[in-house]
Amino acid sequence: MTEPLYLDYNATTPVDPRVLEAMLPWLREGFGNPSSDHVYGRRAKAAVDAARARVAELIGARPEEIVFTGCATEANNLAIQGAARAAGASGRRRLATSAIEHPSVARPLAELARNGWAVDELPVDAEARVRLASVTDAVGADTLLVSVMLANNEVGTIQPIRAIADRAHAVGALMHVDAAQAAGKIPVDVDDLGADLLTLAGHKFYAPKGVGALYVREGTPLAAITHGAGHERGLRPGTENVPHIVGLGEAARLAREALAGEAERIGVLRDDLHRRLAAAIPGLLLNGHPQARLPNTLNLSFPGVTGWDLLAAAGSLAASTGSACHAGQHAASGVLGAMGRDGVLAAGAVRLSLGRFTTAAETGAAAEALIAAWKSLGVRRGP
Amino acid sequence: MTEPLYLDYNATTPVDPRVLEAMLPWLREGFGNPSSDHVYGRRAKAAVDAARARVAELIGARPEEIVFTGCATEANNLAIQGAARAAGASGRRRLATSAIEHPSVARPLAELARNGWAVDELPVDAEARVRLASVTDAVGADTLLVSVMLANNEVGTIQPIRAIADRAHAVGALMHVDAAQAAGKIPVDVDDLGADLLTLAGHKFYAPKGVGALYVREGTPLAAITHGAGHERGLRPGTENVPHIVGLGEAARLAREALAGEAERIGVLRDDLHRRLAAAIPGLLLNGHPQARLPNTLNLSFPGVTGWDLLAAAGSLAASTGSACHAGQHAASGVLGAMGRDGVLAAGAVRLSLGRFTTAAETGAAAEALIAAWKSLGVRRGP
Repeated sequence: MTEPLYLDYNATTPVDPRVLEAMLPWLREGFGNPSSDHVYGRRAKAAVDAARARVAELIGARPEEIVFTGCATEANNLAIQGAARAAGASGRRRLATSAIEHPSVARPLAELARNGWAVDELPVDAEARVRLASVTDAVGADTLLVSVMLANNEVGTIQPIRAIADRAHAVGALMHVDAAQAAGKIPVDVDDLGADLLTLAGHKFYAPKGVGALYVREGTPLAAITHGAGHERGLRPGTENVPHIVGLGEAARLAREALAGEAERIGVLRDDLHRRLAAAIPGLLLNGHPQARLPNTLNLSFPGVTGWDLLAAAGSLAASTGSACHAGQHAASGVLGAMGRDGVLAAGAVRLSLGRFTTAAETGAAAEALIAAWKSLGVRRGP
Repeated sequence: MTEPLYLDYNATTPVDPRVLEAMLPWLREGFGNPSSDHVYGRRAKAAVDAARARVAELIGARPEEIVFTGCATEANNLAIQGAARAAGASGRRRLATSAIEHPSVARPLAELARNGWAVDELPVDAEARVRLASVTDAVGADTLLVSVMLANNEVGTIQPIRAIADRAHAVGALMHVDAAQAAGKIPVDVDDLGADLLTLAGHKFYAPKGVGALYVREGTPLAAITHGAGHERGLRPGTENVPHIVGLGEAARLAREALAGEAERIGVLRDDLHRRLAAAIPGLLLNGHPQARLPNTLNLSFPGVTGWDLLAAAGSLAASTGSACHAGQHAASGVLGAMGRDGVLAAGAVRLSLGRFTTAAETGAAAEALIAAWKSLGVRRGP
């Protein structure tokens, strides 16, 4: 049996074989604890430092501004909870965030709201872009932090972060950017974006699951949310995951090297897949911004079917109906709801996300499988 | 150049080659996100579930009582901060802990103390055992949690956890046990110990750095300390580190299989090393309990030298003077201080910790190197 076609790169990416190659020595002879004061430890520490420099380079940061974490969820929690804890007596008790954030941003904010913080939700338009006027309206002298994702995980829409950050900074607020879905797919530069805090997820750009990073601009007030023996400048204690950190460093190096060419190649495949489907399926609807969108992401509402029926019928295809983190629950997507899509259109949504190892043969086969599945459901449904 | 002799297994262990072998498929073709509702995701989820069962089996727990974390530090923080958050209006605002805990227990407790909690410190005797009378004195109807490590990282002393847990439970308090140094070295059974919460560290028993687990007895009130998409029953959100979790499961299986024989073999090597050193070095002093001690741990105060001068002189040996997590800082060990060792004896301490791959040839060579180093320092020191 051949493996199903994988078009779910936004859920997770395979580990690039070159990343695994870089990791293996640190799962074998390079097993030292970076805190140990002998040669085994010093080698491991040097490997972590080298990875830190590479991750920093990917996003235009300095190595000492990178804090390694166990996942992007932890990085988002550190950014949000850590900024709130560090706020102290600043008098800033408001936070602002978009209506379409990942749960790892939305839920720590909701928890703060339960503890007396005011959280302003920034609405999005029909293409999932935050309305800039809403930012201007929401932020004020009592706003501590604005948290908006760079690219949405479900529909791929890219936010006007710099314009949002400028509005945040104008009132003295911090700007946190969840770049988990963006890094490795589009250029990410913390200065261009105006980010004070920025989250990366290893397993979204060909590093393994189980490693993330938080960029913390020098001088940003941030308190640790866990406490221990002082690793990562005290912001994230715990023995470093040396192999995964090395993998993240190598993935960052590869992403930086490949970014422009890869984005273009994948964008061409993605648009070709879109064209084929649109030509065969009347009423097919694109979710997300037509241009300001990750080059790998194609979220489509198929008319007259549900996304999960369609994917079940197209058995040779591994893709997603909502964001992977909510799987098992077939509730309509909150992102599509925030964009104003009605329940029928939201239920008909399928997210196809391409990646480094996607080929034209695969997108061709995916188009055929989806068209055939849609037609088969239509026949069964019709009179 | 040959590699230095590694006698620092308490700092970190090599990854067992069988553990790496078990992990590799999950760094290659098995890359799915366990939350994804397709075959790639379901395979990854099944691998995580199988690992969960193996980890549970190692400690006599049920699979649903295991929460995977990014490290033992995170597990300790989840246990302590999570219990405190869940305490709500229970009226319990006291915590008790030993004087010799790892910073990943001591510092979250200190943070709670800064936030209005009372933290009672339980003293230890000259062999690093918690005095049971002090537990009885410290705990009361307002005690929420008692946190005591099963085995100390520096001197290896094993605590009378069951007797401590009985005293905690007698007043309705929870018992948290940091078993990071004990698991895989001595039998650990959550029911025998009376643990409600118990911490495991993968990299202390031949799984990679970057994975830990918290045992949470069914019914134990515990709140999440990070928030996201609901993984690990909502207690530890974030995409699972599938390869490392699989590695932890395999390490747990190997530990369970090998434990009795391995502990005996290592104990014989450890005691032989001790005898050789004691025969050659008058005034050599054992730190820790002579019997109630991890079979792999040998913490010795060498007379008339400092531990770091001794290890520097014995250049072919990788060992530790304090606990690895405090490395870079040559302050005397707080553990030895709590045991009543004076500054000179504490400064002369070296921790030799053996493991699965330690051979008799290695301990023999280590004895020779340490004796020669001690003598060379003595000559330089002498008139």
